[in-house]
Amino acid sequence: MATATETTRIKGVLTPVVTPFDSELRPDAKRLIRQCRWLLDQDVGLAVFGTNSEANSISLSEKFELLDAMIGAGLPPARMMPGTGCSALTESVELTRHAVKLGCGGVLMLPPFYYKGVSDEGLYRNFSEIIQRVGDSRLRIYLYHIPPVSQVPISLPLIERLLKAYPGTIAGTKDSSGVWENTKAMLEQFQPQGFDVFAGSETFLLATLRMGGAGCISATANVNPAAISRLARTWKQPDADKQQAALDVVRSTFAKFPMIPALKAAISEFSGDPEWAVVRPPLVELDATQRKALVEAMRAIDFSMEGLEEPALQ
Amino acid sequence: MATATETTRIKGVLTPVVTPFDSELRPDAKRLIRQCRWLLDQDVGLAVFGTNSEANSISLSEKFELLDAMIGAGLPPARMMPGTGCSALTESVELTRHAVKLGCGGVLMLPPFYYKGVSDEGLYRNFSEIIQRVGDSRLRIYLYHIPPVSQVPISLPLIERLLKAYPGTIAGTKDSSGVWENTKAMLEQFQPQGFDVFAGSETFLLATLRMGGAGCISATANVNPAAISRLARTWKQPDADKQQAALDVVRSTFAKFPMIPALKAAISEFSGDPEWAVVRPPLVELDATQRKALVEAMRAIDFSMEGLEEPALQ
Repeated sequence: MATATETTRIKGVLTPVVTPFDSELRPDAKRLIRQCRWLLDQDVGLAVFGTNSEANSISLSEKFELLDAMIGAGLPPARMMPGTGCSALTESVELTRHAVKLGCGGVLMLPPFYYKGVSDEGLYRNFSEIIQRVGDSRLRIYLYHIPPVSQVPISLPLIERLLKAYPGTIAGTKDSSGVWENTKAMLEQFQPQGFDVFAGSETFLLATLRMGGAGCISATANVNPAAISRLARTWKQPDADKQQAALDVVRSTFAKFPMIPALKAAISEFSGDPEWAVVRPPLVELDATQRKALVEAMRAIDFSMEGLEEPALQ
Repeated sequence: MATATETTRIKGVLTPVVTPFDSELRPDAKRLIRQCRWLLDQDVGLAVFGTNSEANSISLSEKFELLDAMIGAGLPPARMMPGTGCSALTESVELTRHAVKLGCGGVLMLPPFYYKGVSDEGLYRNFSEIIQRVGDSRLRIYLYHIPPVSQVPISLPLIERLLKAYPGTIAGTKDSSGVWENTKAMLEQFQPQGFDVFAGSETFLLATLRMGGAGCISATANVNPAAISRLARTWKQPDADKQQAALDVVRSTFAKFPMIPALKAAISEFSGDPEWAVVRPPLVELDATQRKALVEAMRAIDFSMEGLEEPALQ
């Protein structure tokens, strides 16, 4: 029953790739591309322009430039699920259209996130307008539910309505609610209809896969890609629970710090590149004390990022 | 002691001018300019691209076009305080720079509003970077404190630090917290230093003026401009409390409905122009029942919008 389209759907583990900035706070495409190659080598797909990519601190034109540079460098668009949901409808349309044109396997779409307490009808109209204006059967939208940050939830009835109206285009979700009951409800109600549920972190990866889900899109896959993608490939093996427990140890180590600065500090540490620690305001990099504590915490769990410094990957 | 710069500071009543869209959801510069003229004729300044302007549903390039069209049509930039605070640092810089170049009397600046729980240090760096990158002594920033929507507050210690670092440039605030104690604290601590406090609505207009504040920036000044600006001019007269009470009646009438759709419905009603009711997703226009209820509520308080339909104003 699987069609060509279904078999090419994005599955497994993706990460919202952290965006490198230089000391002048400019996005650095070269280092981003190198990082993406390292991630792909470990079977982790590229959810660039996610929350952990500081996507909403990056302008629309900067996103266009980065996306063009990544594709221009030969990164496979089929492994890419860029975040294209902006606050302004017309910017969501522009960025989504461009991602589809470049052949991206999907787009991860935030709801418009400035106005709060908006209705499901208003959100439906937003997604519906985007789909109709992009007007391309190749479009695959993954709805991005992250109420702790966006403050604008994507409800189950909204998913149901969108899926009914645009069954081929509404392709799945990333559930970053942190609420397992919600992910479970999505898996039960919508996964059987071909709506691919990605857990919002590896914390629920095994549980999601056991219920037929598609995988996870996780911040910590920026730093722990090999182990997380291994579980996604081998979750039917007897050591799956043990693997999950090991992932949880790494996740909880990073979760003690502000996540984005900590991910960048870890990459900076292992790559020996101090500029990797740079974040854009309103975020602030780890201070010396925090960074020392992170390094010690990583050492305590024997954490490493193999191959990150490999010149061959450049 | 007043310098030329101080005397030209924006004062009194401004409104976040609602942005007209056509049936294809495109911003309509012509109708916006006409509306701005009507507001100016009633002594209300133009805080275009505010929350009630649906600014964050409008793309950066659309804002550039609207701003250029307004200035091109001869609207006085000295009466304009466009919202230029975007989620992305580089977009805030671009839009602010353009507004200053056009001679705008000030800019109303949201903090970056996607990432939540950010530190005052991170917000300080955001505003500081913008000021340094724009690098123009004509820049006047009004900090936009609207935690119910942005979810990113601008704290009193942050204002203190910014004001100390950039005393000429940090010109004031719009306090849309809805918490009088906060407005009062701003008035007591910062107004004496030339930091102009605007109440976030006319609800606190009289109280703000009595404490030496600059005025108010209010959504309902879109529909009730004459009466609100009259209080700002005549607040020392004996009927001030009575005027304030009359303003409160109008405000509470509109506050029974979703504010932006209600403002647009009222303008649509009085101008006889059905397209004025159009809002962009994620907002939804008033349905027939709500609109009927609004019309009845306006009738019940003898509310009118004189001159709105005047062809002479076009």
